[in-house]
Amino acid sequence: MELKNILVGQSGGPTAVINSSLYGAAAQARLHPEKIGKCFGMVNGIEGFLKGKVLDLDEALPGDELKGLLTTPGAYLGSCRYKLPEDLEDPVYRTLFEKFEDMGIGYFLYIGGNDSMDTVSKLSRYGRKMGSSIVVLGEPKTIDNDLVLTDHTPGFGSAARYVASTVREICVDAGVYDTRSVTIVEIMGRHAGWLTAAGVLARKFRGDNPLLVYLPEVPFDQEAFLKKVEECFSVNNAVVVCVSEGIRDKDGVFVCEYDSEAGLDSFGHKMLAGCGKYLERLVRGRLGVKARSVELNVSQRCSVSMLSAADQQEAVMAGRYGVQAALEGETGKMISFIRKSDAPYSLSCGLEDVDHICNREKTVPLSWITGDWTDLGEEFLTYAKPLVKGNVQVPVDEDGLPLFVCRK
Amino acid sequence: MELKNILVGQSGGPTAVINSSLYGAAAQARLHPEKIGKCFGMVNGIEGFLKGKVLDLDEALPGDELKGLLTTPGAYLGSCRYKLPEDLEDPVYRTLFEKFEDMGIGYFLYIGGNDSMDTVSKLSRYGRKMGSSIVVLGEPKTIDNDLVLTDHTPGFGSAARYVASTVREICVDAGVYDTRSVTIVEIMGRHAGWLTAAGVLARKFRGDNPLLVYLPEVPFDQEAFLKKVEECFSVNNAVVVCVSEGIRDKDGVFVCEYDSEAGLDSFGHKMLAGCGKYLERLVRGRLGVKARSVELNVSQRCSVSMLSAADQQEAVMAGRYGVQAALEGETGKMISFIRKSDAPYSLSCGLEDVDHICNREKTVPLSWITGDWTDLGEEFLTYAKPLVKGNVQVPVDEDGLPLFVCRK
Repeated sequence: MELKNILVGQSGGPTAVINSSLYGAAAQARLHPEKIGKCFGMVNGIEGFLKGKVLDLDEALPGDELKGLLTTPGAYLGSCRYKLPEDLEDPVYRTLFEKFEDMGIGYFLYIGGNDSMDTVSKLSRYGRKMGSSIVVLGEPKTIDNDLVLTDHTPGFGSAARYVASTVREICVDAGVYDTRSVTIVEIMGRHAGWLTAAGVLARKFRGDNPLLVYLPEVPFDQEAFLKKVEECFSVNNAVVVCVSEGIRDKDGVFVCEYDSEAGLDSFGHKMLAGCGKYLERLVRGRLGVKARSVELNVSQRCSVSMLSAADQQEAVMAGRYGVQAALEGETGKMISFIRKSDAPYSLSCGLEDVDHICNREKTVPLSWITGDWTDLGEEFLTYAKPLVKGNVQVPVDEDGLPLFVCRK
Repeated sequence: MELKNILVGQSGGPTAVINSSLYGAAAQARLHPEKIGKCFGMVNGIEGFLKGKVLDLDEALPGDELKGLLTTPGAYLGSCRYKLPEDLEDPVYRTLFEKFEDMGIGYFLYIGGNDSMDTVSKLSRYGRKMGSSIVVLGEPKTIDNDLVLTDHTPGFGSAARYVASTVREICVDAGVYDTRSVTIVEIMGRHAGWLTAAGVLARKFRGDNPLLVYLPEVPFDQEAFLKKVEECFSVNNAVVVCVSEGIRDKDGVFVCEYDSEAGLDSFGHKMLAGCGKYLERLVRGRLGVKARSVELNVSQRCSVSMLSAADQQEAVMAGRYGVQAALEGETGKMISFIRKSDAPYSLSCGLEDVDHICNREKTVPLSWITGDWTDLGEEFLTYAKPLVKGNVQVPVDEDGLPLFVCRK
């Protein structure tokens, strides 16, 4: 068998374990010197690659240095938000495949979410159309957990663990004063409420804070919300509420849009900001109680302080599986997770046609949303608990701060 | 010697180690059964105590259960923001001391910051005036590190470690895209910039992000800021800026006040919000680049994910020292930290007259602020590095989330 090189790229928003998937792929590639030559990394994804930005991972992170990726957040290779044209006749495709051929690439793995799977779909379709032998596979990655045809996605478990533990800390903080207060915690998730739902894991006992959880899957009603908050005061003076950044009213208007103008990002998504701030003001104004809001912000996707060991191991597993699938000639597929059982928790990898994944979204099942749409049922807890398990010790530098690998 | 009881209270905003100080005091009290009877905790500080809220710490956290305090954030006893009247003739003082006598209290330790030291000052002055044998001592506590006559305060080290590691993660996140961007990180600190200064610890090498740091100790000039940001683009496409929530212009106007109305809290402090958001919009509008802001928010004071071992141990030490000082009859003092040397780092406890501490603020020395007021010099690094050292493993529950003790 002729030696071919492997190329790995990262795309979209970072997660705590996107570099663990990269580690898995590179480590697995090194196990096959008889089939795989070099392991290249695209710098800044497809966009950087088109500008000639690429690095040799074996030179950049030789030997055990590769393991630094396992506890480094962000995207080691750099990322991009770049949408390939719909028309496969566009010259960019020819340019890309010529570059692949020039570099002796046989296998291309792209680590990303929805939009990146769109890139995998287009490239694999173009490759097949042109009779290219280069295989193109997608490695799942998103804190939003919104990819279809997979039990969950790498990145979600660590983000969910960060949300659950941070919300638990915020609940403790909220409870120190003996006065009525409302704390709104705004959690990432434009259309899917998985990460906001993870807020319920923060409860230490039944009836504990967060007392209310609002997902974007169901319509948000401001009057019903205010009524629920008032009811909660009979249980706890300090009411903590988790809300998804993407909650909408019955007409589909984002709650944050009541507050400010919204623009569009390069993929045509609405840029959201401020539903927590809006609800804080609403509560203060209408209920006359102390209110504050906390936007968990980018730490949800870039903190390794709450890395889930399960998530990290699964990201590595997906990376390794992708290389094996590529060696077997699979193309146009995404590595998926198949849950075998909840207790004991057991998971294996599979492959799904990427065309059935890109541009679709998996949301929280409506039947899992309970308590007049303000809570999650047992199904969610059973689903989520295995994903946030296990602590990872992040190496520290001489100052006692987390030690990360970075590109030279 | 007659057995007297000890009473401990917590006041003001929580920190990651305010409960470690409580642990130190309670553990030390248990070492003296020949002198100290019961160890009581005020629930919700002076305010709750006046309503009769008190608990028996030996019953609530017997034996080794007390150790749970070492890794529990928030204020286990609950807190308050309550200012005693200036006039020592006010009947509240008599009420308080009658309650102390009724409970057989010989020693009262109040854990808190500036405003709580004001309470310690008034109570000890009243006690002396009335010839009471009850001693009243202050245990320092504040993430702001703004108490005078002490090298630093318990709570600062862990908050600084949280800020430094989170800013380091945000810098990694900011650097993933190959486009110009500005990330404003808004850090707590109304008048003292200690915590914002800790942002510079995030740098992995000289010239690394955060490239600019703005403290409230020096006037903030919007035009100079925009010029500095533009200059930074020659070094790095992704510019990360740390700003204190309390930055002000040369006329003393808070930058956040350009954006919104500001109210007053019960101590007459201005309630600030949004200088990060304001600067984000300023950068986007004036420089036409991608800009975002991240408010680190309450996790700075309530997260134990980045607990500093040094800070935790020193909080315990201060708690223990307070009990010993109380047994020796000291009153109207605050436990202070005296740094013996930087390398090796060595610290001991002392006592300072609380009247010289309350209602004063220690700010970052102007000579430590460098780079046209956008950076910190070596003095700060030498000062701060020992305080953020050492990792603490927080126990986890069956779901892998941090396990805290809480009042029944």
